[in-house]
Amino acid sequence: MELDKTDFKILAKLQDNGKSSYSEIARVINVSEGTVRARINKMLKEEVFEFIIHMNPNKIGLHVQAIIGLETKLGLQDHIACQLKTHQSVRFIGAFSGKHDLIIQGYFRDNEELVSFVNEQLAKIEGIISVDVNVELKQYKDTFSYIDT
Amino acid sequence: MELDKTDFKILAKLQDNGKSSYSEIARVINVSEGTVRARINKMLKEEVFEFIIHMNPNKIGLHVQAIIGLETKLGLQDHIACQLKTHQSVRFIGAFSGKHDLIIQGYFRDNEELVSFVNEQLAKIEGIISVDVNVELKQYKDTFSYIDT
Amino acid sequence: MELDKTDFKILAKLQDNGKSSYSEIARVINVSEGTVRARINKMLKEEVFEFIIHMNPNKIGLHVQAIIGLETKLGLQDHIACQLKTHQSVRFIGAFSGKHDLIIQGYFRDNEELVSFVNEQLAKIEGIISVDVNVELKQYKDTFSYIDT
Amino acid sequence: MELDKTDFKILAKLQDNGKSSYSEIARVINVSEGTVRARINKMLKEEVFEFIIHMNPNKIGLHVQAIIGLETKLGLQDHIACQLKTHQSVRFIGAFSGKHDLIIQGYFRDNEELVSFVNEQLAKIEGIISVDVNVELKQYKDTFSYIDT
Amino acid sequence: MELDKTDFKILAKLQDNGKSSYSEIARVINVSEGTVRARINKMLKEEVFEFIIHMNPNKIGLHVQAIIGLETKLGLQDHIACQLKTHQSVRFIGAFSGKHDLIIQGYFRDNEELVSFVNEQLAKIEGIISVDVNVELKQYKDTFSYIDT
Amino acid sequence: MELDKTDFKILAKLQDNGKSSYSEIARVINVSEGTVRARINKMLKEEVFEFIIHMNPNKIGLHVQAIIGLETKLGLQDHIACQLKTHQSVRFIGAFSGKHDLIIQGYFRDNEELVSFVNEQLAKIEGIISVDVNVELKQYKDTFSYIDT
Amino acid sequence: MELDKTDFKILAKLQDNGKSSYSEIARVINVSEGTVRARINKMLKEEVFEFIIHMNPNKIGLHVQAIIGLETKLGLQDHIACQLKTHQSVRFIGAFSGKHDLIIQGYFRDNEELVSFVNEQLAKIEGIISVDVNVELKQYKDTFSYIDT
Amino acid sequence: MELDKTDFKILAKLQDNGKSSYSEIARVINVSEGTVRARINKMLKEEVFEFIIHMNPNKIGLHVQAIIGLETKLGLQDHIACQLKTHQSVRFIGAFSGKHDLIIQGYFRDNEELVSFVNEQLAKIEGIISVDVNVELKQYKDTFSYIDT
Repeated sequence: MELDKTDFKILAKLQDNGKSSYSEIARVINVSEGTVRARINKMLKEEVFEFIIHMNPNKIGLHVQAIIGLETKLGLQDHIACQLKTHQSVRFIGAFSGKHDLIIQGYFRDNEELVSFVNEQLAKIEGIISVDVNVELKQYKDTFSYIDT
Repeated sequence: MELDKTDFKILAKLQDNGKSSYSEIARVINVSEGTVRARINKMLKEEVFEFIIHMNPNKIGLHVQAIIGLETKLGLQDHIACQLKTHQSVRFIGAFSGKHDLIIQGYFRDNEELVSFVNEQLAKIEGIISVDVNVELKQYKDTFSYIDT
Repeated sequence: MELDKTDFKILAKLQDNGKSSYSEIARVINVSEGTVRARINKMLKEEVFEFIIHMNPNKIGLHVQAIIGLETKLGLQDHIACQLKTHQSVRFIGAFSGKHDLIIQGYFRDNEELVSFVNEQLAKIEGIISVDVNVELKQYKDTFSYIDT
Repeated sequence: MELDKTDFKILAKLQDNGKSSYSEIARVINVSEGTVRARINKMLKEEVFEFIIHMNPNKIGLHVQAIIGLETKLGLQDHIACQLKTHQSVRFIGAFSGKHDLIIQGYFRDNEELVSFVNEQLAKIEGIISVDVNVELKQYKDTFSYIDT
Repeated sequence: MELDKTDFKILAKLQDNGKSSYSEIARVINVSEGTVRARINKMLKEEVFEFIIHMNPNKIGLHVQAIIGLETKLGLQDHIACQLKTHQSVRFIGAFSGKHDLIIQGYFRDNEELVSFVNEQLAKIEGIISVDVNVELKQYKDTFSYIDT
Repeated sequence: MELDKTDFKILAKLQDNGKSSYSEIARVINVSEGTVRARINKMLKEEVFEFIIHMNPNKIGLHVQAIIGLETKLGLQDHIACQLKTHQSVRFIGAFSGKHDLIIQGYFRDNEELVSFVNEQLAKIEGIISVDVNVELKQYKDTFSYIDT
Repeated sequence: MELDKTDFKILAKLQDNGKSSYSEIARVINVSEGTVRARINKMLKEEVFEFIIHMNPNKIGLHVQAIIGLETKLGLQDHIACQLKTHQSVRFIGAFSGKHDLIIQGYFRDNEELVSFVNEQLAKIEGIISVDVNVELKQYKDTFSYIDT
Repeated sequence: MELDKTDFKILAKLQDNGKSSYSEIARVINVSEGTVRARINKMLKEEVFEFIIHMNPNKIGLHVQAIIGLETKLGLQDHIACQLKTHQSVRFIGAFSGKHDLIIQGYFRDNEELVSFVNEQLAKIEGIISVDVNVELKQYKDTFSYIDT
C-alpha cells in the first residue's frame, strides 16, 4: 500500500492526539469526514498503524528497565526469539548486525525480578551463549511520533 | 498515585484495544461507566498512560531501523541527550549502565539517511566520542502490552 | 525499620570510633545513655550494623589482592555464588549488570596462592565460563564510613 | 611486625565477635588478660587492625551499589585517586592490572545519585577518559573475616 | 535498468570466461550475435559490469595483504575515505555498521611497506582515531562470480 | 616467474582497459605484437592474471554486502573454509591474524537472505563459534588496479 | 642466595660481553681471579645465570615471530602449558593476569608454519578455548641486559 | 649469508652449552677446529648469534614481570619505541598486528616500581593513548634454543 499526502496528514494528526475524532481531523486537513473514515479503516486493515495506549512503566510498577544483548548459538536465533516472545517482561526483540545478537528490551518490577528473569527464565531457553544486561539509569525520550509534521 | 485492581483492569482492557469505549469496559469489568470515565481521566492526568497510535515504520517508509550506542564525554551526557531529543529520526534515548553510553533507537528511510544521520547530524553535537551502529536485520516483537492479563 | 536523626548520629559516632562507649556517645549527641543503649540494641537486632574488626590484609600476610570477574553459565550463577561463599580467600561476591558476571574480591598470600585458587579451586566449580583476574597494584582508599558527618 | 600464633588466635576471636572482651578472649585462648591487652594494643598501634562498625548500606538508605572502572590519562592516576578519596560515596579505590584502570566501589541513594555522581562529580576531575558503571543486582557475600579459624 | 534472463545468461557466460566472443555467447545461449552485442553495450553503458583483468597479488610482488579497520572521528569519515582513495595500496574502502569504522583492504610488498603505510601514510590523514591491522595468513577464496549458473 | 618491465607495462595497459587489443598494447609500449601475445600467454599460463568481468553487485540485484568475521574452533578452520567456498554468496574467504578468525565477504539480495545465510547456511557448518556481521552502509572504492602506472 | 656488589659487578661485565675471561673481569673490578671463578661457579650452581648464545631468528630462517594469547579452560592451564613446552617453535610461556590467558611467544619459518602451528599443533591440545595471534611487524629492542651499569 | 649444515650443527652445539670449546665442537661434529673457529667468527661478524649470559630475573631481584600493550597515536609509534629503548626495565619492544599496539616486556623490582614506570616514565612519553598491563603470575618456559637438534 502506497500512502499519499492525505494519509500522512491523517497520521500526523493522530500522532499528535490518539483520540482525535474523525470530524476534527476532517476539519483540520480540509477533507470530508467520510474520506477520513475510509482512509483510517484502510490503513488499519493494512496494518499501517494501530490504536494503542502507551503506559508509563514506572507508574504501573515496572521500575527497572533494561536492554539485554544475547549472543545465541548459530541456527537457534529464530527458535530463541520465538520462546522469548511469550514472556510478559519482554517488550521488544530484534536481530541486529554485530556479534549475532538478539537485542531485547524488558521491563521489570525491581532488580530481583530482572535477576530472576535472567537466571531462571533465560536459563531455560536452549542456545543462549551469553547475556549482557544494561540497566537504564535515566530516560530522556520515548516517543511514537515518527512523522515530520 | 497508587493504582488499584480496578485501574489495572481498565488498563488491561485498553491494552487489548485502544479504542474500547467506556461502556464496553464498564460492562466487562463490572463497574459503572462513570467509574471508568473517572478512573481514566485521573490516570491520564497523572500520566499513567496516554492514547497514541503506533505506526509500523516499514509501512510509512522507514525501512532502516538501528540501535546506536554512544560513548559520551564525561559531563556532557545530559547536554547531548537534549540535543538528540529534537531529531525526528530518534525515537528513544536512555542512559544505561556500562561504558557510560547513551543508547538511542532511530528509524531511517534507508542506509543513506542513517549514514548521513551519523556523519552529519551526530557530528554536529559536541562530546560524542564513539558511535556504535547496530542495524536491525529482523524484528520479532514490538509490543506495548506490559500488563499481565 | 526507619532510622531517625538520633540513630544516624549514633552511627556517625561509632563510624568514627568503633570503640566509643555508650556514655561517650550519649554525652556528645546529648541524649541519655539508656537511649543510646536501646537504639544500638535495636539497630544490632535489625542488622543495621555490626561491630567488627577490620584487618589490614598486608599486615596479616595477605599480600596479593585481586578483583576477579566471572562469566557464568546461564542459570548457574546462584549455585556458583553459593560454592564461592565457603572459600576463605573470597571476601566479596556480587552479581552485577554487564556481561552476566559475578564480581568477586579475594585476598591471597602470594601469586602462587592466587594462581592455585583460579586453576584449582575455581576449576572445581561447574559453570564458570571465563575468569578475568585483575591484580591490585596500589590501594588508595578502603573505608567503612558511609555516613556524611 | 611479625604476628605469632597468639596474635592470630586473638584476631580470630575478634573476627568472630568485634565486641569480645579481653577476659573472654584470654579465657578461650588460654593466656592472661594482660597478654591479650598488650597484644591488642600493639596490633592497634601497628595498624594490624582497627575496631569499626560495618553498616548494611541498604538499611541506611544507600540502595544502589556500583563497581565503576575508570580509564585514566597516563600520569594522572595518582592525582585522580586523590580527588576521588574525598567523595563520601566512594568507599574503595584501587589501581589494578589491566587497561590502566582505577576500580572504585561506591554506594548511592538511588540511580539518580549515581548518574549525578558520574555526570557531575567525576566530570569535574581532569583526566578521566572513560567510565564503566556496573550496577550491583544481588549481593552474595561481604565479609571481613580473612583468617582461617 | 532491469536485467532480463538473456542479460543474466550473457553475464553468466562472461563470468565463466571474460574473453568469450560475441559469436560464442550467441551460439551457447541461442540468440543472435547482434543481440549479444547490443545487450553487452547497454550493460557496459549502464555500468552493470566492466571488462577487467584480475592480477594475483603475490605474482606481481604484493606479498602482504591486510584488512584494516579504522575508527574515525565523527563527521570526518567521508573526508578520510576520499583521501584514502588516492592510495595505490588501498584496493577497497567501505563504511560498515559497528563501531563507526571504515574497513579497508590493502596490498603491500612486505611488512615494512605495511608498517610505513600505517605509520606514515595514515598518520598524515586527520581524524583517524585507531587502526586495527589484520594480516592475511592464508587465502581460501577470491572470486568474482556472483551469479548462480 | 620473475616479471620484467615489459610484463608490468602490459599489465598496466590491461589494468586500464581489459579489452585492449594486442596491437594497441604493442603500439603504446613500443614492442612487437608477437611479444605482447607471447608475454600475455605466458602470464596467463603462470596465473599472473586472468581476464574477468567485474559486475556491480547492486546492478545485478545484490543489495546487501557484508564483511563477516568468524571465530572458529581450533583445528576446524581449513574444513570450515572449504565448506564456505561452495556458497555462491561468499566471494572472499581469508584466514587473518587476530582472534583466529576467518573473514569472509558476502553479497546478498536483501537483509532476509543475509539473515538466512547466517542462521541456516552457517549454522549447518560444524565448528563456527561466533559470527560477527558488519553490514556495508556505503562503498567508497573497489578497484582492481594494483599496479602503479 | 643473596648477591652482593661484587656479584653484580661480575654479572654486569658478563652482560656486556658473554665471552669475558676471568682474568679480564678480575682486573676490571679489582678482585682476584680466584674470587671471580668462585663467584661465577656459585652463581651458575644457584642458577642465577647461564652462558648461552642468542641467535638472531631472521638469520637462521625464522622470519615470522608472533605473540599468541591463549584463553584456556579452567583447570587445564598447567596441563596445556606443559604440552606447549615441548614445541620447538615456542620460546616463551607465561600465565598472566587478565582474561586467564597464557601468553606464548613463537618463532616460525613463514606464515604457513604459523598457520599450521595454530590449526594443527594447538588444535591437538585439549582445553584451548581461543587463540589470539599477533604477528610481529617490526622489532625495536630485544635485550638481555637487565642490570644497570 | 646462507647458513649450511655445518653452521647449524655448530649453533646446535652452542645452543646446548654456550661454553663449549672449539675443540669440543670440532670433535662432536667431525670437522677441524679451524673450521669451527672460522665459521663461528663469520657468524659472529654477520650477527647470526652472540655470546651472552641469561640471568634469572628473580635471582637478581626483579620479582615483577609484565607484558604491557601500548596503543599509540598514529605516526608516533617509531618515536615512542625509540624513547622506550633507553629504559633499563624494558627488555623487549615490538610492533605487532592488531590494534596498532607496541607490545613491551618489562622486569621490575616490585609492584611499586611497575606502577611508577607506568604512571611516571610512560606518562612522560608523548603519544601513548592507552596502557594495558598484564602481570606475570607464573612462568612455564623461557628458552633460547630455537634450532631443532
